[in-house]
Amino acid sequence: MADSSIIEVFPNPHPDRNYLIFHTAHEFTSLCPVTSQPDFARVALRYVAQRTCIELRSLKLYLHSYRNDGIFYEDVTNKILNDLVERCEPRWMELETAWSVRGGIDSVISAQHGDSTVVHRHT
Amino acid sequence: MADSSIIEVFPNPHPDRNYLIFHTAHEFTSLCPVTSQPDFARVALRYVAQRTCIELRSLKLYLHSYRNDGIFYEDVTNKILNDLVERCEPRWMELETAWSVRGGIDSVISAQHGDSTVVHRHT
Amino acid sequence: MADSSIIEVFPNPHPDRNYLIFHTAHEFTSLCPVTSQPDFARVALRYVAQRTCIELRSLKLYLHSYRNDGIFYEDVTNKILNDLVERCEPRWMELETAWSVRGGIDSVISAQHGDSTVVHRHT
Amino acid sequence: MADSSIIEVFPNPHPDRNYLIFHTAHEFTSLCPVTSQPDFARVALRYVAQRTCIELRSLKLYLHSYRNDGIFYEDVTNKILNDLVERCEPRWMELETAWSVRGGIDSVISAQHGDSTVVHRHT
Amino acid sequence: MADSSIIEVFPNPHPDRNYLIFHTAHEFTSLCPVTSQPDFARVALRYVAQRTCIELRSLKLYLHSYRNDGIFYEDVTNKILNDLVERCEPRWMELETAWSVRGGIDSVISAQHGDSTVVHRHT
Amino acid sequence: MADSSIIEVFPNPHPDRNYLIFHTAHEFTSLCPVTSQPDFARVALRYVAQRTCIELRSLKLYLHSYRNDGIFYEDVTNKILNDLVERCEPRWMELETAWSVRGGIDSVISAQHGDSTVVHRHT
Amino acid sequence: MADSSIIEVFPNPHPDRNYLIFHTAHEFTSLCPVTSQPDFARVALRYVAQRTCIELRSLKLYLHSYRNDGIFYEDVTNKILNDLVERCEPRWMELETAWSVRGGIDSVISAQHGDSTVVHRHT
Amino acid sequence: MADSSIIEVFPNPHPDRNYLIFHTAHEFTSLCPVTSQPDFARVALRYVAQRTCIELRSLKLYLHSYRNDGIFYEDVTNKILNDLVERCEPRWMELETAWSVRGGIDSVISAQHGDSTVVHRHT
Amino acid sequence: MADSSIIEVFPNPHPDRNYLIFHTAHEFTSLCPVTSQPDFARVALRYVAQRTCIELRSLKLYLHSYRNDGIFYEDVTNKILNDLVERCEPRWMELETAWSVRGGIDSVISAQHGDSTVVHRHT
Amino acid sequence: MADSSIIEVFPNPHPDRNYLIFHTAHEFTSLCPVTSQPDFARVALRYVAQRTCIELRSLKLYLHSYRNDGIFYEDVTNKILNDLVERCEPRWMELETAWSVRGGIDSVISAQHGDSTVVHRHT
Repeated sequence: MADSSIIEVFPNPHPDRNYLIFHTAHEFTSLCPVTSQPDFARVALRYVAQRTCIELRSLKLYLHSYRNDGIFYEDVTNKILNDLVERCEPRWMELETAWSVRGGIDSVISAQHGDSTVVHRHT
Repeated sequence: MADSSIIEVFPNPHPDRNYLIFHTAHEFTSLCPVTSQPDFARVALRYVAQRTCIELRSLKLYLHSYRNDGIFYEDVTNKILNDLVERCEPRWMELETAWSVRGGIDSVISAQHGDSTVVHRHT
Repeated sequence: MADSSIIEVFPNPHPDRNYLIFHTAHEFTSLCPVTSQPDFARVALRYVAQRTCIELRSLKLYLHSYRNDGIFYEDVTNKILNDLVERCEPRWMELETAWSVRGGIDSVISAQHGDSTVVHRHT
Repeated sequence: MADSSIIEVFPNPHPDRNYLIFHTAHEFTSLCPVTSQPDFARVALRYVAQRTCIELRSLKLYLHSYRNDGIFYEDVTNKILNDLVERCEPRWMELETAWSVRGGIDSVISAQHGDSTVVHRHT
Repeated sequence: MADSSIIEVFPNPHPDRNYLIFHTAHEFTSLCPVTSQPDFARVALRYVAQRTCIELRSLKLYLHSYRNDGIFYEDVTNKILNDLVERCEPRWMELETAWSVRGGIDSVISAQHGDSTVVHRHT
Repeated sequence: MADSSIIEVFPNPHPDRNYLIFHTAHEFTSLCPVTSQPDFARVALRYVAQRTCIELRSLKLYLHSYRNDGIFYEDVTNKILNDLVERCEPRWMELETAWSVRGGIDSVISAQHGDSTVVHRHT
Repeated sequence: MADSSIIEVFPNPHPDRNYLIFHTAHEFTSLCPVTSQPDFARVALRYVAQRTCIELRSLKLYLHSYRNDGIFYEDVTNKILNDLVERCEPRWMELETAWSVRGGIDSVISAQHGDSTVVHRHT
Repeated sequence: MADSSIIEVFPNPHPDRNYLIFHTAHEFTSLCPVTSQPDFARVALRYVAQRTCIELRSLKLYLHSYRNDGIFYEDVTNKILNDLVERCEPRWMELETAWSVRGGIDSVISAQHGDSTVVHRHT
Repeated sequence: MADSSIIEVFPNPHPDRNYLIFHTAHEFTSLCPVTSQPDFARVALRYVAQRTCIELRSLKLYLHSYRNDGIFYEDVTNKILNDLVERCEPRWMELETAWSVRGGIDSVISAQHGDSTVVHRHT
Repeated sequence: MADSSIIEVFPNPHPDRNYLIFHTAHEFTSLCPVTSQPDFARVALRYVAQRTCIELRSLKLYLHSYRNDGIFYEDVTNKILNDLVERCEPRWMELETAWSVRGGIDSVISAQHGDSTVVHRHT
């Protein structure tokens, strides 16, 4: 059962700078709420921390806790974002899920919280 | 025969947030209206939902319903967009079709509905 | 309805040499005989001609004739091979179909007719 | 709990020809028997059928049945091969699992049953 | 001899929407005006139609008509753009040619006509 | 008009060793003998020289001489091989043409002359 | 022990132009401060110099000096940036670290100093 | 010895349009001024011409003239840009050099002249 | 200091079958014995077990133990192979190291122990 | 001037095992003997040592010594092989040069010395 209390944070070591943190989990899986068949996704988290950063091992365990939950793509994406925002209180955060092909169609859901103008990355 | 009544929607689980939904169908096929020869395309749908989201299985069946229709690239792209806009009433929607090589030329047609400034994705 | 009489041949312009001919059709589609849902494959034909070669446009039309047939992967691969062998009488022929992902699984079926030692290709 | 009775077979439509069947499942997951953490693999099945072929949907469900089993890489690879050999009685079969990176190391386990000389594929 | 009269147009089926049309010809060839040696390019046409769209087969034949013409990269790029603008009267059009390596150098020439702000594509 | 007299050779600087020479021409074009439409191919020449090697610039000009000839895939492949064998008298030679997609099908034709066992390449 | 005194600079040969300098080190390694296990990263440095440029060999040695230090991703990224800013006094600088997969998750940390509008790169 | 007098220009055939010209030289080599060891780079030139365009063969010979010169990355990039600006007087020009790995680090230097807003390319 | 006593083994769960086990460590690093500069490699281990298999976590720790050792490419490759052979007593084993570019040259060293004919993998 | 006396060797640390050593130099350049224009190649050396191994830095310097020599592809490939064989006396050696595109054609020359059966690499 997905459990947001698993998420741990640690003090941001450079709170005075708006720098970007990107974590990409390649091994997310949950269940389809209709058919109970497994779904697989890549979960990309991008954020600008304020006072705390998300601890990486707890992020892994939190994502694992969806393994046997039945939940829709659109719902799980927003729920993970909401849980992480609540625990970490970032200046800006984006959560994007990219799902494996089902019926010849692959899907990406991408949600944001906060002001994306706080920082820019040179690409 | 293409039939927009196949398209089903469900309530947007997070209507208060402007998040992006991307579905990419890799297996679209229709017929050339002049030669009746098969055409093949990848169909990419990107949108920001308002009150409803497009149900994925019904999207697959709706796209399959073009299988034996003769229709031009430019026309089918705008027709699919119009049908989906009518059923889903999104804040913003883009429909892009990418067609296999014919006579050494490949083609992409890309149409939008609504205001693209409602949301931005960090890339 | 798949129809082997569509296949046309022309005289092999160099019958005295065992050379290889490879045609790869990227746009094959048929129907699942159980669900009637569309299947998509890449069809690779490789052969050493004897007296006749397969005419390319007729090969395309023959493959198109499966568009609305319900047929299993294993069956259609062997059926196409048998039809082409009957029309062309090659020294050696291989027919391989590579199918799009279904339920997270992609499939390849590969069948041969005749003696593969007649020719080797440097790779 | 992994259950080989899920595996279904159907009569080989062309039993007189030694042709190759390849199925690649991109979404296999089980648990580490030591840490209970999830493992992820790509499972490639290649075989030459005798009297029966493996039904694709049942193969998917059989692989899904390992989802919450704790089992070692080397063990699960040989176990899947043994189960499929028992149900399908192929002329030749190969089962290969390719596992995601753990501790900076990725792993592949590859086991065979029967005589690999029954058929050759032109590459 | 390159001949702009080959270019045919058809009525834009959705003239009320500023949608993008991209055609990429992978097989363009002309001659170097100095050495008469063949040059090879990929020609990418992108435009927003007004009242008419460019017919795809006529575009192919028009591009083929440069096959035995001696013409510089910079000149042919602008000439094709001018010819297509004259026949199609688009809201916006871009013509880009990408040339094969000569003397260890590859080249791209990219020219536009009209106002590129009429439409945006989400990428 | 294709003209084999263009092909020039020079003395093999190391005639006592069976070494491999590979030349790959990325820009071959000829015409379809039926429709007069352009065809495009990549031409790969691989050989073990005896007393003479093929001069590279003359090979380029010889291949260019097919530019406005109407000729079938199978025929041109064997004709180029025959012309090069006649001029160079190699211990072994392979000529392979890989043609652009036509009607959703791409083609490769591969022919050899002489004994391929004279040399092996470690791969 | 990481030591910023290793970093050497040389006079900017073109101080009147805001041009970009990018250095990407593919072989950075440090230790996890919790487990003492090795971490591996690609370190990308991008900057616009003012009076001095960073000497490349000293940059390499400075990055090597982290080899046996235990330090967190977020901390080391900001520390390297701070050290380089102090020694080089650039108009703008970005430091990005991209870390190998740990627990199925890869990470990128990206920090900037100064005004990114001083220069733009055409892409 | 690098010699800017080698650079030749020809009249811009379409001086009334702000179109982009990109040349990428894949085979640049010079010497390290400290160790005299060879350096290798890809040199990308992008510009909007005014009255004259840079002649491609003379560009190749000009770049070759650095072959035995000892010069730093930052210096040679700005020097080539300055030489080309002086000879061609473009509306805008960018010169970017991308250098092979040295000590596990690869480098890119990117400099511009003039106003980059004169033209935009749709990507 | 590299220490072969770290390597642990466990009983082969299927000792009656000659199956292949491949482990690829992407993060190996040691020191150059001449310059003391870091070297980086990918280490690929492939083997057919007899009575015991190599435990994955101990393999990781064993490879980490070379981190501060000065040792030549050819030597370390054979030494790792010898250590693993001694601990695991495989039917066949191959150890291959692939080293990062030094002076524009990358290197691969590949050594085997035992009889490679015990098993073949279908590719 | 190319000078084989630059090549240094060191004692093979494991002379009792037939293991493979591969060095790939990505930055070889020489001159065309006819036009004096630069040629660029990737040089791959593969060998099984007997009593001595080739020292990597001296290999780099030896290859650099061709920088201003005019020499044909076929000649330089065999000359490098002969020089390395003379200095190192390997059990087996292969030298392969892969040259950049000239006139739309790229070339590979591949020569061997000794018995290739002394060792096999699992691929």
